[in-house]
Amino acid sequence: MKVSIIGATGYGGIELIRLLQHHPHMRVASVHSSSQAGVSLQDVYPHIGGRFVLRDIQSDDIEGDLVFLATPPGVSSEWTPKLLAAGHKVIDLSGDFRLRDGNVYAKWYKKTPPNEEVLKQAVYGLTEWNREHIANASLIANPGCYPTATLLGLAPLVIQKWIVPHSVIVDAKSGVSGAGRGVSLGVHFAETNENVKIYKVNTHQHIPEIEQMLRDWNEQMGPMTFSTHLIPMTRGIMATIYAEAACIVSLDRMIELYKETYKHCPFVRVREAGSFPCTKDVYGSNYCDIGVSYDERTNRITVVSVIDNLVKGAAGQAVQNANVMLGLEEQTGLTSMPMYP
Amino acid sequence: MKVSIIGATGYGGIELIRLLQHHPHMRVASVHSSSQAGVSLQDVYPHIGGRFVLRDIQSDDIEGDLVFLATPPGVSSEWTPKLLAAGHKVIDLSGDFRLRDGNVYAKWYKKTPPNEEVLKQAVYGLTEWNREHIANASLIANPGCYPTATLLGLAPLVIQKWIVPHSVIVDAKSGVSGAGRGVSLGVHFAETNENVKIYKVNTHQHIPEIEQMLRDWNEQMGPMTFSTHLIPMTRGIMATIYAEAACIVSLDRMIELYKETYKHCPFVRVREAGSFPCTKDVYGSNYCDIGVSYDERTNRITVVSVIDNLVKGAAGQAVQNANVMLGLEEQTGLTSMPMYP
Amino acid sequence: MKVSIIGATGYGGIELIRLLQHHPHMRVASVHSSSQAGVSLQDVYPHIGGRFVLRDIQSDDIEGDLVFLATPPGVSSEWTPKLLAAGHKVIDLSGDFRLRDGNVYAKWYKKTPPNEEVLKQAVYGLTEWNREHIANASLIANPGCYPTATLLGLAPLVIQKWIVPHSVIVDAKSGVSGAGRGVSLGVHFAETNENVKIYKVNTHQHIPEIEQMLRDWNEQMGPMTFSTHLIPMTRGIMATIYAEAACIVSLDRMIELYKETYKHCPFVRVREAGSFPCTKDVYGSNYCDIGVSYDERTNRITVVSVIDNLVKGAAGQAVQNANVMLGLEEQTGLTSMPMYP
Amino acid sequence: MKVSIIGATGYGGIELIRLLQHHPHMRVASVHSSSQAGVSLQDVYPHIGGRFVLRDIQSDDIEGDLVFLATPPGVSSEWTPKLLAAGHKVIDLSGDFRLRDGNVYAKWYKKTPPNEEVLKQAVYGLTEWNREHIANASLIANPGCYPTATLLGLAPLVIQKWIVPHSVIVDAKSGVSGAGRGVSLGVHFAETNENVKIYKVNTHQHIPEIEQMLRDWNEQMGPMTFSTHLIPMTRGIMATIYAEAACIVSLDRMIELYKETYKHCPFVRVREAGSFPCTKDVYGSNYCDIGVSYDERTNRITVVSVIDNLVKGAAGQAVQNANVMLGLEEQTGLTSMPMYP
Repeated sequence: MKVSIIGATGYGGIELIRLLQHHPHMRVASVHSSSQAGVSLQDVYPHIGGRFVLRDIQSDDIEGDLVFLATPPGVSSEWTPKLLAAGHKVIDLSGDFRLRDGNVYAKWYKKTPPNEEVLKQAVYGLTEWNREHIANASLIANPGCYPTATLLGLAPLVIQKWIVPHSVIVDAKSGVSGAGRGVSLGVHFAETNENVKIYKVNTHQHIPEIEQMLRDWNEQMGPMTFSTHLIPMTRGIMATIYAEAACIVSLDRMIELYKETYKHCPFVRVREAGSFPCTKDVYGSNYCDIGVSYDERTNRITVVSVIDNLVKGAAGQAVQNANVMLGLEEQTGLTSMPMYP
Repeated sequence: MKVSIIGATGYGGIELIRLLQHHPHMRVASVHSSSQAGVSLQDVYPHIGGRFVLRDIQSDDIEGDLVFLATPPGVSSEWTPKLLAAGHKVIDLSGDFRLRDGNVYAKWYKKTPPNEEVLKQAVYGLTEWNREHIANASLIANPGCYPTATLLGLAPLVIQKWIVPHSVIVDAKSGVSGAGRGVSLGVHFAETNENVKIYKVNTHQHIPEIEQMLRDWNEQMGPMTFSTHLIPMTRGIMATIYAEAACIVSLDRMIELYKETYKHCPFVRVREAGSFPCTKDVYGSNYCDIGVSYDERTNRITVVSVIDNLVKGAAGQAVQNANVMLGLEEQTGLTSMPMYP
Repeated sequence: MKVSIIGATGYGGIELIRLLQHHPHMRVASVHSSSQAGVSLQDVYPHIGGRFVLRDIQSDDIEGDLVFLATPPGVSSEWTPKLLAAGHKVIDLSGDFRLRDGNVYAKWYKKTPPNEEVLKQAVYGLTEWNREHIANASLIANPGCYPTATLLGLAPLVIQKWIVPHSVIVDAKSGVSGAGRGVSLGVHFAETNENVKIYKVNTHQHIPEIEQMLRDWNEQMGPMTFSTHLIPMTRGIMATIYAEAACIVSLDRMIELYKETYKHCPFVRVREAGSFPCTKDVYGSNYCDIGVSYDERTNRITVVSVIDNLVKGAAGQAVQNANVMLGLEEQTGLTSMPMYP
Repeated sequence: MKVSIIGATGYGGIELIRLLQHHPHMRVASVHSSSQAGVSLQDVYPHIGGRFVLRDIQSDDIEGDLVFLATPPGVSSEWTPKLLAAGHKVIDLSGDFRLRDGNVYAKWYKKTPPNEEVLKQAVYGLTEWNREHIANASLIANPGCYPTATLLGLAPLVIQKWIVPHSVIVDAKSGVSGAGRGVSLGVHFAETNENVKIYKVNTHQHIPEIEQMLRDWNEQMGPMTFSTHLIPMTRGIMATIYAEAACIVSLDRMIELYKETYKHCPFVRVREAGSFPCTKDVYGSNYCDIGVSYDERTNRITVVSVIDNLVKGAAGQAVQNANVMLGLEEQTGLTSMPMYP
């Protein structure tokens, strides 16, 4: 199976190339960049060696049956209709097709929403919770990094209605690669190192994406409080999730629920009571590790969910979805152990 | 005025020496260490030059009228009675005298509480909120780093009763120096770098210290949810504080309240609406910078409070308290600008 | 083919497990630790999942035909004779069998040298330069991290006699994982972050290992100047190598020589003139990337050689050697692309 | 004494403000920026509080008798003549006036050299070695960061002729703040963190500056080999300097020479034999710490010289020079201890 990557010069694109390198059933047939067509990818990323030359984004040049769009928001909504029309299947890593309501997209992304007909075809690619629809889709809206960590961490409690619907607070921490490869003062080493910054307090564009899924699971779920922090590290997201318990359930029972829920999910690993994952536990891998705790004093549950933002939070989950679309085992090509230390 | 430092080889001790170096009214007359008496401090910290030789902790050797105890919990409770009896004033940077109830101390610190009579003399040294008692005290319990950031961030809202008493959730992030200079796998560079770790979820010994003060301000305040995260940086604490609004108040009014509350507090700086401090904004300084936001969707307030854990969170506040005890302007010797970048 | 790892709880051991996870012809059959026998490896490294239980180091428990010794110096020299006697092949990642002269070992390592008969069997495992002997060996002395980077960087010039024999100066920079997982003040995050330290100036135990190989290539090679620096990063070594040109050769000719020399070496990548590798270009991979420059003003050559100290500098080269010993392609199981960023 | 800072929004400018904050005899009367005139400096650097509004760079607006130019190369050469003509004394932190020969400047900086008459007035501000001329100068060319560390490390050996003139190799390591506050891929956190990069191999514009001074001290000094490395830290430079010993001198005698040479230099601290400084030993301070070693095997001397690139390597030395120009003790306002950790 031949696949193509559009937007190969960003961090999502280069991670796709790394992950697909040894995939037994997919081969990167062409890589594309609107701005750097004709350039060898090695000139952009010397570590990659001389495998690829960047091509323009013209249909004739796109060899893959399946196309990964690793482009910024606003770009995918333009190219996707053409790609679908030309018979390609598409996995879009941007936020363009994640929100079912174009108005919500316009509000949070400050961009024109995609074509409505195309939007309707999009299937939300949180693999663990949508395998069947993904299997039959032509267009996957690959989830954002924060939503992946948050939703996998919250799902069992929300579906089971074990938490008070309006009580959710998410305090997320991300490495700097999540901001992409574009240059700005905000990613300058001297401004980021030895520093923690909070940003987009309750205004992050991933909020409606999370809330949409939460309400699919339980329509009573209300708006949540959500803040994101920039941490002086390259990769990794930790979502620390707080919610009020809606019923009396022991911690052991909660952990049992998580284990039961994810028992057929090879990439979700649940910790025993008293143990919590750190971001390094999933570094470079497609795992989402989850720890749960309950505090009797406050009747609140704290869930800790960690992923590598570039793998399970982007390229890895995209490959996982591609596997499902192609009828393969979902972990195909993705079983590499985290790199530690 | 001569002062002494006991526990001078730890990070709190060495920071006291740095801050007192140019103090116009205090002079470090002797530095002490139980384990390294006789050693030149320069052999422990080459950066300090040849100023000091560590002395044993015997009354005869302690020259200061005022003694800073920068020792681990459990040690201060032993030495403080002797120091007070010998006529020294004491500022204790450990947690030994912060909790008024010895049983609470025993429960959270897993150590024998200090002598009750001595404990009664202790004044909690959150300078901004306790200046009068501090001025007359012989024994100051210098606040913990997390409590300082959290309490300064919460005080106006709690005292004003603008938040729902049981709704407080604190997600704190700290640099590694907060763990002290002792060696362990938990502070190994290769385990800490490129990593975020959560620890002591709802079990941190600073919880009762914070709650005690909150209840002093508003006795209805309930237990809070509190978790601490280790961030790959050396210095700095950010407390991200979440609480439900108890009444309808605009963000502008809230910020006005904060500014009003802290208008005579030279070390507390309040940000305008839409702006939040990062830990680097206070690096190496005694400032506590605070940003406030309100989210209509959830009716929750998010407060961001940052300090340098070794300055306002330890040695700096200790000097600030010493200034108050000596009748000096509280900012004396502490006005250095943050170091940036 | 079953293999065993002794010393599986160190960084070399855990990296072997990561690299061997997908090896098509080797399977980790048993992992061993003298101090933690009976413990699940998951308790030591949660990221690894529940695959392994640590065993004691008794012959009966060692399942592998091939044994990797990822133990500290002084330990391998004790166990290797027993392992060989029991019919295992051994790849030793420590320095115990790298120096042919026991007296030199005793001088630089301050330890008792290994048994002389066993030492004679040891083959130095710098794969690119010793494939034939490695193929027939029972005991491989896997090279040190600094020697690997330095020797691959120097080999073409030394063998070709294009540099003045006594002119070599190596300024090496290493990430902190090179110090191992043991705790000490030297690897404390707060002491290592935002810091560069020089250590073991001209006294590093890797010096005689490098000089021994250099003299094998050209017996006129004299002692070199060698210093090592600890850099605030986890993985990676850069050896910046300086030497005086012994003859008039253009930079293009030098680079041609490097390319020619390493054309059958899949893990050595030579940069074009004007381009130099950084450590991140080989992160997590078995590559050694090399850049060369020549300065007419001084008639000196500067060679930059980078590796991942835990892969090509330890576990990766060990697997590469195992491949050669087993008659496999040397890159088997080692072709993962570097992880970037 | 009123001083002005032109280029106050860069890292050199902001560090000048920090250092001058408590200077007993200088007061920052005006801060200037060509691009951001009218903006409050607090909007650029929130940590600084509301002290300053940026002014345009017109003579009327410049209040200081002494002007610090913290501008990029090519800018100072334009403004300096006007400032001098208007009666200001000038300390230029850029490289524009450091090279006596305009052709050399043009070659290494690829810019038009400054006016020759003005250039002749410039005095090189390596304070320790040029106090008398500095005291009488109107225009100081403040040294570069690498030259400061390198020259202070080499001076005693060069002047004493204890090293072979053509044998000098400098391997320098710098934190990222040395690259300034401008944004580029080269300072992107994700590209710089967990990475060591070599750059400008033998082509750094600081090379002629160093060699010019070395030849002033000993005209036989030849060209040196010089390479610079970017290290994942914010502040600090370590210059590791290698040279061949020209005569038989014991290490003790060398260290004695260094101590003797610098005995009246309050900012140069020489380590005892066997001890080497790390960059953190001078963090935030104006010190230059030096360690020396001699290797009998190779007859080479290794000197390690560390500074904070923004203090002794830029703003601190500028203040030190201003002190000398004003007839003050050179350490006035600069005696802050390094910040550790």
